[in-house]
Amino acid sequence: MKAITFDDKLELVDIEKPVLKKGEALIKTSMVGICNTDFEITKGYMGYKGVLGHEFVGVVENVSDDEDKNLIGKRVVGEINLGCNNCQWCASGLQRHCPNRQTLGIWNKDGCFSEYFTLPIKNLLEVPDNVSDSEAVMVEPIAAACEILEQLHIKPMDKVAILGDGKLGLCISLVLNAMNVNLTHIGKHKDKLQISNNAGSKILNLEDTKNLNACFDVVIEATGSVGGFEKSLSLVKPRGVLVLKSTIASNEGLNLAGVVVNEITVLGSRCGQFAPALKLLSEGKIDVNPLISKIYNVDDAIEAFEENTKKETLKILIKF
Amino acid sequence: MKAITFDDKLELVDIEKPVLKKGEALIKTSMVGICNTDFEITKGYMGYKGVLGHEFVGVVENVSDDEDKNLIGKRVVGEINLGCNNCQWCASGLQRHCPNRQTLGIWNKDGCFSEYFTLPIKNLLEVPDNVSDSEAVMVEPIAAACEILEQLHIKPMDKVAILGDGKLGLCISLVLNAMNVNLTHIGKHKDKLQISNNAGSKILNLEDTKNLNACFDVVIEATGSVGGFEKSLSLVKPRGVLVLKSTIASNEGLNLAGVVVNEITVLGSRCGQFAPALKLLSEGKIDVNPLISKIYNVDDAIEAFEENTKKETLKILIKF
Repeated sequence: MKAITFDDKLELVDIEKPVLKKGEALIKTSMVGICNTDFEITKGYMGYKGVLGHEFVGVVENVSDDEDKNLIGKRVVGEINLGCNNCQWCASGLQRHCPNRQTLGIWNKDGCFSEYFTLPIKNLLEVPDNVSDSEAVMVEPIAAACEILEQLHIKPMDKVAILGDGKLGLCISLVLNAMNVNLTHIGKHKDKLQISNNAGSKILNLEDTKNLNACFDVVIEATGSVGGFEKSLSLVKPRGVLVLKSTIASNEGLNLAGVVVNEITVLGSRCGQFAPALKLLSEGKIDVNPLISKIYNVDDAIEAFEENTKKETLKILIKF
Repeated sequence: MKAITFDDKLELVDIEKPVLKKGEALIKTSMVGICNTDFEITKGYMGYKGVLGHEFVGVVENVSDDEDKNLIGKRVVGEINLGCNNCQWCASGLQRHCPNRQTLGIWNKDGCFSEYFTLPIKNLLEVPDNVSDSEAVMVEPIAAACEILEQLHIKPMDKVAILGDGKLGLCISLVLNAMNVNLTHIGKHKDKLQISNNAGSKILNLEDTKNLNACFDVVIEATGSVGGFEKSLSLVKPRGVLVLKSTIASNEGLNLAGVVVNEITVLGSRCGQFAPALKLLSEGKIDVNPLISKIYNVDDAIEAFEENTKKETLKILIKF
């Protein structure tokens, strides 16, 4: 079967179809999405080698146990963290923090960028008919945006800013606007900010924020840069919350003195649960279609990855 | 009058007695404490120049308004931040976050290391008779420790660690032990850790923590070093809280990726309210006396500052 792998270099290769293990489903891939994490992996992130990919929609082809036969033929998305099922984290539904977890296409588990792949049945959610394939692929990044609501109580009159108008920032904008949050989106790209504006955000070009100081109750950092962290710190009120949504890979000088002096809460936030994201999509409360830049065929996967690196590009999908 | 000032260098000088302004008390200084912030100022922190000092106990010598005359002769301590009294922060009792605040001996306001100094009447708290002068001087650092309880709900069975056994770490230990917190104190100095142990902490030498990983619900960073931040991050559980209590002046490489991946809450924490600290001291719930290394006379102030820089030294007090 066709698979997009990384092992020193990105390749479209032909590999064996995976073998079902107990408790798993074999999924026939319909469509996948390229995440910036995939791109980071091709630069060495996590030291991961194998089949890439963790954003997908597919159809259950087979299951290991007869009792799950009703799932065969169902269109599904799936949570990407596989817990050990034997620790306090897994017991409390937080497989995504299990210290022995595998993560689809990121850590110790082949990803979904192949014609078939496996995932535990318990990770799967059926996709409602009114959610298209290209919308369903977006459940994973939308879930990551929903995670903020899992961790933080945003009050109706809180002044909230998002810094960064990439895919992640826009997913957060869609979710928070759906929640009626008083939202200002700060970025560098007029076209991207316009999507956020259409969803309900006030928008501001980064260059026009030089005189803004300590005026937001919550600032969500979604730029992935040290400069973005420092800017966020300057925008958040004393005793406010800075949500750190993107991993800042750089080791450049970061100064945390402002966190102490202004008693800021820096809240790290990563993957989220799929159910609330799927609910938002199914109920039409958010529209992810403006975030989709282009859909490629799997045979053009390498080109799709190249397109993904361009500044103006948002979400690139690949059809299997 | 005698005063300890910093203006490029630390000096004991003779200056004019300050003039009372409306709403202020003139305080005759009894005893003061040297804080590491004073030492940092002598290395350039905040760019402050003037009379140093913000930890004191003194006696009210005079007041600007007749209605406050009952305060004359009273022994007092005082909160160190002076708000503008004209903003939302001041209106909600958070003068310590007023953007236009002055801070005694730190920012735009001569400090208490002089025979007389002034402070707004509203900043003063009367010291109960059963709290000695040397104990009362410790109200400011104990208040900074109490601030953690203002910001964070520590549950009875939470596993809490303090990293760093300096003055700040020990003040935090005294306060949290008084609150029956399940506390482990990690440091490098046997004698200092023993004080924490006597107050109720389990104690661990830093070298014996190499195999400890992600096992504390709350870790309080009180070392003031980048290495301390990274160590704290390794000790805190996923979704746990890292209280950042000391300003990390260094710009060395700090990596926040772990904050995102493990969804850590980094909580900056600074000055606290004096009332709960004074209550703990007055009710005998904490004993700060083991933290007092030596009491100097004001004429030996420069020597006192030198003594303060020694590794084994805890709190140095100066008698006026």
